[in-house]
Amino acid sequence: MRWLIDGQQSESVAASDRGLHYGDGLFETVAVRQGRLEFWSQHLNRLEAGCRRLGIEPPDREILLSEAGRLFTRQETGILKIIVTRGSGGRGYLPPASQRPRRIVSAHPWPDYPETLWMEGIQMRLCQTRLATQPLLAGLKHLNRLEQVLARDEWRTADIHEGVMCDSDGNVIEGVMSNLFLVRDGTLLTPDLSNCGVAGIIRQVVLEIAQALDIVTNIGTITGADLNRADELFVTNSVIGLWPVKALEAHRFDGGRISRTIAAELERRREAQSHPIP
Amino acid sequence: MRWLIDGQQSESVAASDRGLHYGDGLFETVAVRQGRLEFWSQHLNRLEAGCRRLGIEPPDREILLSEAGRLFTRQETGILKIIVTRGSGGRGYLPPASQRPRRIVSAHPWPDYPETLWMEGIQMRLCQTRLATQPLLAGLKHLNRLEQVLARDEWRTADIHEGVMCDSDGNVIEGVMSNLFLVRDGTLLTPDLSNCGVAGIIRQVVLEIAQALDIVTNIGTITGADLNRADELFVTNSVIGLWPVKALEAHRFDGGRISRTIAAELERRREAQSHPIP
Repeated sequence: MRWLIDGQQSESVAASDRGLHYGDGLFETVAVRQGRLEFWSQHLNRLEAGCRRLGIEPPDREILLSEAGRLFTRQETGILKIIVTRGSGGRGYLPPASQRPRRIVSAHPWPDYPETLWMEGIQMRLCQTRLATQPLLAGLKHLNRLEQVLARDEWRTADIHEGVMCDSDGNVIEGVMSNLFLVRDGTLLTPDLSNCGVAGIIRQVVLEIAQALDIVTNIGTITGADLNRADELFVTNSVIGLWPVKALEAHRFDGGRISRTIAAELERRREAQSHPIP
Repeated sequence: MRWLIDGQQSESVAASDRGLHYGDGLFETVAVRQGRLEFWSQHLNRLEAGCRRLGIEPPDREILLSEAGRLFTRQETGILKIIVTRGSGGRGYLPPASQRPRRIVSAHPWPDYPETLWMEGIQMRLCQTRLATQPLLAGLKHLNRLEQVLARDEWRTADIHEGVMCDSDGNVIEGVMSNLFLVRDGTLLTPDLSNCGVAGIIRQVVLEIAQALDIVTNIGTITGADLNRADELFVTNSVIGLWPVKALEAHRFDGGRISRTIAAELERRREAQSHPIP
């Protein structure tokens, strides 16, 4: 791992940082494949939108790009993580009147997921940890992620690859580290995220792909029973792209035609909508 | 400010710390007055209970006490903040199998609240930011505090001293940085915190005082209308102790007999239940 803290090579952050004290900040996880920052402008757009919602001055795009270039070579593959916090500021919750946000940019190795997860699909579990309803923070990739930590801690066996998280009403919202889609009778469905969940970059791209391919799409309420009635189920995030789901608990999914079509177009766009490491 | 990170004098923390990345940890705010750590054992008990709920190995009590002694002199007044995180560990949500929790212990100056806040009471506002319902985290003083940051950011005028926070159903839960009590017809009431809110040390002490003084107490659901019907309203935390509320928005409270009785006993116990700086 390599780190740049406000542009300085360092492996440490001020102990007074509000990201540590309150989770007062946001992050982005950018896939870097063969020297290309995938969906770079989408990540920056989301980061800036999140900063606006939390009242944090967003970092300069050119600075972030140049920092990516300092952390990755022009052919490298890995993960670029960008954290933006409100910076340091006292002991109380009140954001300081004069804020100096902090950039924590780091390079991580590409995870060694087996190829079969893309080819044959993943095994999911249904998490007991529920997502709380908080419209003020819904959609944001903020640093308050204890719910995900608790949910991911529910299993340690390597043969389960991801978990389904529901809200307190039992409606399906997302995976622990991914967004969730299902296909039924040719229609693509994904949960509404206005009350909780992270609005993933790949989720947005998949919705754009569905529109381009004239796949009828519905963003709404999805119950656990809907999952079991689905023809296809898949999860997405910036690193994995798209994983089909072969089974949720004991229920198996056989289909995959629409998932495969979307996955192929997603791979094309990962390349096309990427930005070269400078 | 002075900091001890795992016992080492340092003003910085590993950038890989899960407290920063996910808010994966807990904190305590201990009042230190004239060299005495107020409610020291209660703080340690709560910290350990929180660590157990999050699956984090709690820090050694003797080490924390000795670190308090390194940060404060034997007559000093200030605030001791203890943060315990799950330590460093990768990029994903999964807690590492082998955890090395991190202690971030710091000394902060005593805040310069004017004496009138204790004598005449505070002005409160009703916050628009709602607390999400999350029983898995309710009560804990964990590091996911964006709701408090948003709520506290709702006002910047110095003549408002604290805000009332409700849950998504509109029931009153707590203050932004305090717990909340009301008195009506001689009965003491405070919100149930099984779905959200922080179970404050002073809240617990006040409940013990009420029992000792034979004040009828009710922990339950409190609506906004209940607040306006109250004879007395007060807030508590480890630093302020007890502040009576003189007004919530435009509604004024006149009484104060029970608040004053409890406040006097609380001051006595702050002294009696403290531990000397070693």
